[in-house]
Amino acid sequence: MTHWDLAVAEIPEPHAGPGQVLTEVLACGICGSDLHLRRHGAAQLALRDELAGDLEPDPLRPIPFVAERPMVMGHEFCCRVLDVGPGVTAVAPGDVVVSMPGVADARGVHSLGFSNEYPGGYGERMVLLGDLARRVPAGLDPHVAALTEPLAVGVHAVARSGIAAGDSAVVLGCGPVGLAVIAALRRQGIGPVVASDPSPARRQLAEVMGADAVVDPRDTPPVVAWRAAAPARPPLVVFEAVGVPGLLEQAMRLAPRDGRVVVVGVCMEPDRIRPMIGIGKELAVQFVLAYTPAEFDEALRWLAEGDVAFPAIVTGRVPLDEVPAAFDALADPEAHAKILVVPGPGR
Amino acid sequence: MTHWDLAVAEIPEPHAGPGQVLTEVLACGICGSDLHLRRHGAAQLALRDELAGDLEPDPLRPIPFVAERPMVMGHEFCCRVLDVGPGVTAVAPGDVVVSMPGVADARGVHSLGFSNEYPGGYGERMVLLGDLARRVPAGLDPHVAALTEPLAVGVHAVARSGIAAGDSAVVLGCGPVGLAVIAALRRQGIGPVVASDPSPARRQLAEVMGADAVVDPRDTPPVVAWRAAAPARPPLVVFEAVGVPGLLEQAMRLAPRDGRVVVVGVCMEPDRIRPMIGIGKELAVQFVLAYTPAEFDEALRWLAEGDVAFPAIVTGRVPLDEVPAAFDALADPEAHAKILVVPGPGR
Repeated sequence: MTHWDLAVAEIPEPHAGPGQVLTEVLACGICGSDLHLRRHGAAQLALRDELAGDLEPDPLRPIPFVAERPMVMGHEFCCRVLDVGPGVTAVAPGDVVVSMPGVADARGVHSLGFSNEYPGGYGERMVLLGDLARRVPAGLDPHVAALTEPLAVGVHAVARSGIAAGDSAVVLGCGPVGLAVIAALRRQGIGPVVASDPSPARRQLAEVMGADAVVDPRDTPPVVAWRAAAPARPPLVVFEAVGVPGLLEQAMRLAPRDGRVVVVGVCMEPDRIRPMIGIGKELAVQFVLAYTPAEFDEALRWLAEGDVAFPAIVTGRVPLDEVPAAFDALADPEAHAKILVVPGPGR
Repeated sequence: MTHWDLAVAEIPEPHAGPGQVLTEVLACGICGSDLHLRRHGAAQLALRDELAGDLEPDPLRPIPFVAERPMVMGHEFCCRVLDVGPGVTAVAPGDVVVSMPGVADARGVHSLGFSNEYPGGYGERMVLLGDLARRVPAGLDPHVAALTEPLAVGVHAVARSGIAAGDSAVVLGCGPVGLAVIAALRRQGIGPVVASDPSPARRQLAEVMGADAVVDPRDTPPVVAWRAAAPARPPLVVFEAVGVPGLLEQAMRLAPRDGRVVVVGVCMEPDRIRPMIGIGKELAVQFVLAYTPAEFDEALRWLAEGDVAFPAIVTGRVPLDEVPAAFDALADPEAHAKILVVPGPGR
């Protein structure tokens, strides 16, 4: 297992081109996929390149990054606008903004946080696209607004799950992704929601998010907890929010006949399933990724309205020079759930 | 690999109990799942028993068969009624009938073809349930009516896929299951349908079923054939109709963004997938099994109306004492697709 190196370094000051916005980063959450990438980066790039041949050409597909050149990760950011490039009218210097993590120029689309060309949010400056930037509503703490992106992941997973009023949910894994799913489920009035995680601290956060029951899967099978919480046996959607090998099959075993499994955990390794489990119960497995612009906006609105408990996931704030240590600290679920990188003053 | 033994033997004459019907078998198709069971039976039973603990009690779940006692397989049958038990009014002696392969008595539900208590269709006599028996419309050859069950598998897979007019399909595997899917797709006017199979004979049958294009996947990736057949890039549903390890991942690689994969092949072994393939394209994987009563009836209607090419899949007819040899012969896709067991005269 080769870890990619993390380093704090000076890079050239970026500038806002046409349609772009230069910003200073106020806060940027450290995402589990960045931890994954640090650990499995080489394998992940090999898979990305292998699969690229499956796809038809698409000019909107982000330009792939290469491992040979440095990049600044970080895609869960809230920024203050410093300068706007030609043609930008939607935002102005001084505005506090969030944005879906993408920027475009004459070369194409760049994925912010996964680009060799544009820095991500683990740094002092970012260039955003004026059209994608969203002003943070007055009164919303920028450190909370930085949670828009990870909350949008939950909004999207719940939307794509097709879950409806009267259904129930089991969420396997209470990291930031699972917690976002729980928050989104409860915001939409869906329950009972049963949350499973071996970590007591994560289970406590799940309760804060609004889970009706939490369970340590080493003590009690989640299905047993679900049966206790849902004696009327409403339709069940299982959210796999862990993303390690073996969890998909666990989710499939847990699902009832005609059940649905939503894969929102990002398992970057090969996994093993026994298809007969899915066949025998006619399961539907929906893989999900990211969110739509409307879902991103909805997540920001929920945070501004203050009616999701999601901000409680923040367990720490670090300056830039402590980012490498924060990556390591996030390995302990008892210690941390979400750490915000705060490049300037304001921790 | 342990093969279960096949033998031709005399067994006690069954009788029709209350609500039941005694029949003579006119024809019964040999199903791939019986071939699988012969080869992987022990592993399959171990998995069945392991998974049984996942499920809640259900009095309608068929009573599981055991390997220690013999059973008569065969669940794709057409029969003539010999006698009816008390309370049966829907059918009468002399009627030619088909039925979903289940029967019930005071002990519970028995799966015909997978029961130690009731014989399946590879024999001279069967006991059916009066309420499930369907009279074969006048003029429909009983050997064609015996195809109702495997055709219903295709009807169901297409229905559960959610495929709609204007969509396209790739069918991986042109055994009886894949051919039933192709026939059902064409019957519903969906196309283009691209069919893939390494066997020339199977590809020819796919064309007879109405596939718009057929491809040998060793020569041409099915996605290339699909792109040629569907230049407008309509939504695509991929049907995995092979059921061996590796095919699910092939289907997932073939599916476009937001694509659907329907798993209708019955893979009884563990399989390996890379979840990132599903995540990156937000795929939906729908596992399907069997059919509803309405779909079974619809398959019978299609056969009676003569507007599906499915009867062309029959490549051979054997008497009871040739069933073991027929199991072996079905291993060669060039020689056979569907063999009917014909216990009495009439081959």
